[in-house]
Amino acid sequence: MTSDPVRLGVVGLGRAFALTAPAFAAHPGVRLVAAAAPRAESRRAFETAFSGRTFESVEALCADSDVEAVYVTTPHGMHRDHAIAAARAGKHVLLEKPIAVELDDAEAIVAACESAGVRLIVGPSHSFDAPVEQAAKLIRSGELGRVRMVQALNCTDFLYRPRRPEELRTELGGGVIFSQGVHQVDIVRLLCGGLATSVFARTGAWDPERPTEGAYAALIDFAGGVFASLTYSGYGRFDSDGWQGGVDELGRDKDPGLYGAARRALGAADDETALKAARSFTSMAETPAASHHEHFGPIIAFCEKGDIHLTPDGIEIFGDERRETRPAPFRTARAEVADALVAAVRGGASPLQTGRWGLASLEVCHAMLESAESGRPAALRRQIGVPS
Amino acid sequence: MTSDPVRLGVVGLGRAFALTAPAFAAHPGVRLVAAAAPRAESRRAFETAFSGRTFESVEALCADSDVEAVYVTTPHGMHRDHAIAAARAGKHVLLEKPIAVELDDAEAIVAACESAGVRLIVGPSHSFDAPVEQAAKLIRSGELGRVRMVQALNCTDFLYRPRRPEELRTELGGGVIFSQGVHQVDIVRLLCGGLATSVFARTGAWDPERPTEGAYAALIDFAGGVFASLTYSGYGRFDSDGWQGGVDELGRDKDPGLYGAARRALGAADDETALKAARSFTSMAETPAASHHEHFGPIIAFCEKGDIHLTPDGIEIFGDERRETRPAPFRTARAEVADALVAAVRGGASPLQTGRWGLASLEVCHAMLESAESGRPAALRRQIGVPS
Ligand SMILES: NC(=O)c1ccc[n+]([C@@H]2O[C@H](COP(=O)([O-])OP(=O)(O)OC[C@H]3O[C@@H](n4cnc5c(N)ncnc54)[C@H](O)[C@@H]3O)[C@@H](O)[C@H]2O)c1
Ligand SMILES: NC(=O)c1ccc[n+]([C@@H]2O[C@H](COP(=O)([O-])OP(=O)(O)OC[C@H]3O[C@@H](n4cnc5c(N)ncnc54)[C@H](O)[C@@H]3O)[C@@H](O)[C@H]2O)c1
Repeated sequence: MTSDPVRLGVVGLGRAFALTAPAFAAHPGVRLVAAAAPRAESRRAFETAFSGRTFESVEALCADSDVEAVYVTTPHGMHRDHAIAAARAGKHVLLEKPIAVELDDAEAIVAACESAGVRLIVGPSHSFDAPVEQAAKLIRSGELGRVRMVQALNCTDFLYRPRRPEELRTELGGGVIFSQGVHQVDIVRLLCGGLATSVFARTGAWDPERPTEGAYAALIDFAGGVFASLTYSGYGRFDSDGWQGGVDELGRDKDPGLYGAARRALGAADDETALKAARSFTSMAETPAASHHEHFGPIIAFCEKGDIHLTPDGIEIFGDERRETRPAPFRTARAEVADALVAAVRGGASPLQTGRWGLASLEVCHAMLESAESGRPAALRRQIGVPS
Repeated sequence: MTSDPVRLGVVGLGRAFALTAPAFAAHPGVRLVAAAAPRAESRRAFETAFSGRTFESVEALCADSDVEAVYVTTPHGMHRDHAIAAARAGKHVLLEKPIAVELDDAEAIVAACESAGVRLIVGPSHSFDAPVEQAAKLIRSGELGRVRMVQALNCTDFLYRPRRPEELRTELGGGVIFSQGVHQVDIVRLLCGGLATSVFARTGAWDPERPTEGAYAALIDFAGGVFASLTYSGYGRFDSDGWQGGVDELGRDKDPGLYGAARRALGAADDETALKAARSFTSMAETPAASHHEHFGPIIAFCEKGDIHLTPDGIEIFGDERRETRPAPFRTARAEVADALVAAVRGGASPLQTGRWGLASLEVCHAMLESAESGRPAALRRQIGVPS
C-alpha cells in the first residue's frame, strides 16, 4: 500500500461534481488529475482549479494511463456506459447514486467491474455521512440490543431545483424515488442490516407541471422482523431541516430568509436547463463550506435498549434513564467518500457501498414504484446484508 | 335550547377522569352532578370537589333522573355495558376512547344510542384538540387545495405508565394500538376526510415483561388517493415532544429533568395496580394546568398548495413563498370536548366524533393488527366521511 494520492479522473463536471470537488481537493489521499466533459467551459474550470488534464470524451479519459480511478458523475442514464468504459480500461470506479436506473444496467456494471477486477463504489450517498456510520456501528456493537424499527422523514425542495428534462420523467430515472429515495433507502438498509425482504409504498406526483414522483411513503420489512417507515416530500414547503437544528442537507446553517428560494428562482427562469447548467462546477470558490455533516432528514432507530436520533453533528442516544449526545468529528464534507476510495484503491478494502449494495438499494426503489402501482407489498430478491 | 349547564354524571373516577375533570369544572355549560365509582375514596373525592352525589353502581347513577348525560370513563372492556346502561336510561353518552375493544361491542353501543334517541360522543380524543380542528377546517376550506399525504409520528412513554393487567394484554384491548393508535387514527382520518379504504401495518412488542404492542408503523389509504403514514413508539426513549416545542401531550411545558421518570417510577413500585390507582381522580388541585393545547406528536398534512404542521399552539402553514403561523386560541384543556357535549345535548348538534366515527377508527386499529399478522393490506368496510 503506497501513500501516493489516488490519481482520480472525473467524467461529468455538473452539479454532483461541484458538491463533491471540495472533499477531493481537501483530501490528502486523492488528487484530481483529469476530467472528461463535453462543455469547454467546464473543462477550463477543471484545468484552472486542479491543474488537471481534460478530454472531450470518456474514452480519451479512460485511455489516460495515469488515471487510476474514475469518478462517474454523469446523468443516471449514462452510468452504465461510463462505468463500464472505466472498468474495461482497468480503472477503479466511483459511481454516483443511483448506480443506474434499470436493474439490468446495474447488473451489467457490477459484472463488468468484477470481471475487470476493479473496485466499484456507489457514492457519494448519504449513507457515507459520518452520523449514519456512527449509528450503524453502535447498532452492530450490540450496546443497545437489536434494532427494531426505523423512522425516516425528509422534506426538501428537490422537485423545484432546476432539472434536466429527463429528471422529471420517471421512466428515465426522474423523480424523487431514484434520486432521493435511493439515499434514504441506503441509510435505512445500513441501519437495519441490509436484507430488506419486501416493501409497501405509496407515491405522489402532485404537480402536473413536474409530472414525476415528488413524494412517497413506504414501509420496508427486513430480515429478523425489523421494519422501517420512510416518508419523503420534495415539494419545497414543510422543511424537516427545522428538526435537524436548522442545518441543511449539505451541512450548512440554513438561512431562514431563503424560504421558497428554489421555487422563486425556477419561476423567474426562462430556461430551466440553462439554470441547471449554471449550477455545474465552475470553481472551488463557488462551493459552500459546511460546518456540520451532511444529513438526510430526521432519522430515528428504535433499538431494544435505546433509540438513536441521527443529527448533523453526530447521534443522540435515548436510553432508559438518560439521553446522551455523541458527536461525530467533522473534517470536510464528504471526506468519508474520499476515505473509502483511498481504502479501496490503495488498501484493496471493500467499502460497504459496493455495486451490489447500490443495486440492492435500487431494487427497493423499483419495488416502491411497483407496490404503489399494484397496491400490494413488493418482494425483494437482490438484497445483501451489511458485512460484519 | 336552554342555557342551563348540562347535568353530567360520571362512571369511573380513574386516570381519564382526573385528566378531563378540569375541563368540565371550568366550562360554564357543564355541571358535574353525580358519579358512580366502586372505591369509597374516589366517591368522597368527587363529593368534595363538585358537591355532587355519588353511587356505588352504574345502575344507581343511571336511575338518577337529574342526570342528563353520562361520561363513561371506565376501562375499555366495560364501555359496552356502561354506555348501553346510560343510553337505555335515556342519558346522552360521552364515551372514552376507544369506543370499545371489539367491533361487535361498538356496533351494539351505536345501536343502543340510536334506538334510545340519545347522542353518543366518543371522546375525549386528540381529534378534539383545537389545532387538529383548525387544520381540518383549513383543509376543507380548499385554501391549500386538496390534502395529499399526512405524516404522523408520536413517541411517548405510554408503555411504562402504570397499567392495569389487562392494559398489557392485546386481546383485552391492551397495548398502544387500542389506546394510542386510536387517537392517531382519529386525527389522521379527520385530516384525510375519514374514508379510509385499507391499511398496511407493522407492529412491535419488544419488551417481554410488557408483552403487548408498544410500537407500530402504518400506511393508510383514503378515498381520493390520499395516504397517511403513522408511526408510534411508546417505549419511552426518543421523545417527539422535542419537535413540538418541548410541550407534552397534555399541553404543559415539559421538564427535561423528568426524562425517564415513567420507567423509574415503575421500577421502584412493588404494586403496579396500586400505582395506577394512585393516578386516579383525587382532587382538582392535583390536575396539572396546561398552557398549550394538547397534542399527539408532530403531524404534517401535505396539501396541493401548502403543508400544515400541527403544533401545540395552532398550525404552521408552509406555502410556496412563505411560512406563516396561525394560533389557535387556548382556553382550558379539553374545552372543545365540553363544547361538543353542550352542543349535542342542548343544541341537538352532532359532533364529528360520533359513535359511528369512533367505530370507524376502531376498525382501523383492528385492521392494523390484522395486516401486521397477515403481511398484507387489510381492507376497511365501516368507514365514514367527515360531514361537510
Ligand atoms: N451525491 C450527490 O450529492 C448528488 C447530487 C446531485 C447529483 N448527483 C448524481 O450525479 C449524477 C449527475 O447529476 P447532476 O445533477 O450532477 O447532473 P448535471 O447535469 O449537473 O451534471 C452532469 C454532467 O455530465 C456532463 N456530461 C453529459 N454527457 C457527458 C459525457 N458523455 N461525458 C462527460 N460528461 C458528460 C454534463 O455536461 C454535465 O455537466 C446523477 O446520477 C445524480 O443522481 C448526486
Ligand atoms: N382521553 C384520555 O386522555 C384518556 C386517558 C386515560 C384513559 N382514557 C380512557 O379512559 C378509560 C379508562 O382508563 P383509565 O386509564 O382512566 O383507567 P383507570 O383504571 O385509571 O380508571 C377506571 C376507573 O373505573 C372505575 N371502575 C371500575 N369498574 C367500575 C364500575 N363498575 N363502575 C364505576 N366505575 C368503575 C375504576 O375504579 C377506575 O377508577 C379507558 O377506556 C381509556 O382508554 C382516556
